[in-house]
Amino acid sequence: MSWVDGQPAEGLPIHDRALAYGDGLFETIKVLAGCPELLDRHLQRLEHGCRRLAIPCDINGVGSQLIAFSAELGEGVAKLIVSRGEGKRGYAPPVPCMPRTVLTGSSLPNYPKAHAEQGVRLYPCTTRLAEQPILAGLKHLNRLEQVLARAEWQDPVYAEGLMRDTSGRVIEGVFSNLFIVELGRLMTPSLERCGVAGVMREEVLDRARIAGVPTQVGDLSLGQLYRADEVFVCNSLYGIWPVRQLDASVWPVGPVTRKLQSLVADLSSNT
Amino acid sequence: MSWVDGQPAEGLPIHDRALAYGDGLFETIKVLAGCPELLDRHLQRLEHGCRRLAIPCDINGVGSQLIAFSAELGEGVAKLIVSRGEGKRGYAPPVPCMPRTVLTGSSLPNYPKAHAEQGVRLYPCTTRLAEQPILAGLKHLNRLEQVLARAEWQDPVYAEGLMRDTSGRVIEGVFSNLFIVELGRLMTPSLERCGVAGVMREEVLDRARIAGVPTQVGDLSLGQLYRADEVFVCNSLYGIWPVRQLDASVWPVGPVTRKLQSLVADLSSNT
Repeated sequence: MSWVDGQPAEGLPIHDRALAYGDGLFETIKVLAGCPELLDRHLQRLEHGCRRLAIPCDINGVGSQLIAFSAELGEGVAKLIVSRGEGKRGYAPPVPCMPRTVLTGSSLPNYPKAHAEQGVRLYPCTTRLAEQPILAGLKHLNRLEQVLARAEWQDPVYAEGLMRDTSGRVIEGVFSNLFIVELGRLMTPSLERCGVAGVMREEVLDRARIAGVPTQVGDLSLGQLYRADEVFVCNSLYGIWPVRQLDASVWPVGPVTRKLQSLVADLSSNT
Repeated sequence: MSWVDGQPAEGLPIHDRALAYGDGLFETIKVLAGCPELLDRHLQRLEHGCRRLAIPCDINGVGSQLIAFSAELGEGVAKLIVSRGEGKRGYAPPVPCMPRTVLTGSSLPNYPKAHAEQGVRLYPCTTRLAEQPILAGLKHLNRLEQVLARAEWQDPVYAEGLMRDTSGRVIEGVFSNLFIVELGRLMTPSLERCGVAGVMREEVLDRARIAGVPTQVGDLSLGQLYRADEVFVCNSLYGIWPVRQLDASVWPVGPVTRKLQSLVADLSSNT
């Protein structure tokens, strides 16, 4: 199932700048019972990204399309792309600019239940994230770093990969954000230089604050990660997976991780 | 005029990874009298890029498509995209991988003759190039940095923009490579950390060597650029434009630039 600008379509017009330059943004949204989960967070992030890339997106119109699409999809994953639209040859943004919306649906991923229950092992990716503050945090369509990182391992013993930046800081998973717990405090890497600011990361930070768990966003070294009391990864599709192992470090599934898992288990009431 | 996998088509299948992730490469090729200029260099660069991204591209098949497309286009610009092809949701490269070829044609750009004759002024872009050695040099589809840089100016007094890396080194133009001449030696920035290794850059380096002009590839500071005897930019569509001004620095159109302009004026005999 796929729509372009609200109409069923199997193809994207060939002069779209999403194809030419990756000139756009995307959201990956869990759809249950015809409703997009974390809808407001997804639309807020998209709006923020469009503002930073100067894409004049009608966010309400996009939201309406997403809601209608989700109703028809029923259950699954809605992938929403907003591109800068049609352009002539050359990098200069088109005038006038008519952003385009693409929606594609797929079934929910079939992750083993053990990932959430017993935790996962992370692959230590050698592909590093470049430091680019003007794009950091955005879920834009320039994702070759993630493609190359994900291609580093095939062994299903690794459910996710750990990505560091070119200076060696720990940033995130290939398709997840990362948190550690140290001395009862929840900590996640700053995404001011690179990385994707996931909606589940925001949800986890907010739920933790409400639950009285101290939180911190800052730089995270590999040594600090190794010494953490608990480690977990999260995204909007699977929620939270405890991390059991990375390299020679092994962690138990700890109480803060379990508590946050239960807090984000049912998001439908708050979206 | 546009082809997908050798067939006329107006749309790209919506699950193509070029749209999802910018997971592919491109070439921008000048076509004259039905023939692609610098054909071998374009195909060699594409093949090299596919190897680095592990896209199993049939380069001979792509070359045949490009030649047939150019014959039909006659005169203009052929844009050739090779994507990793169709994929399911998620970053993992599809197995099997069936790369896709997209060709679009447009008319030759209508640049003022004065650009080549009297030289151009460069806009000093504030958008910096991130340092990412695994992608450096490649003409891949992740081009948001160029989009943001090109959006910085509208005044046609600037024909190109100067891009530096996040450490401040001078790297290239937004859609060109850059050279300086100092003390009779031709110098162009190293593209080991970022930048696009243009086919005209290679052509200029080769022609200079054959003509006995000493060449060097290395790091270039802004101060060194300001103090250069001659400056020019180049790409495969317009050839060579002398640079007349950047910030407060003004350069004459020098003898080495003029000599190289004449050497690349007719490329049809050597491609």
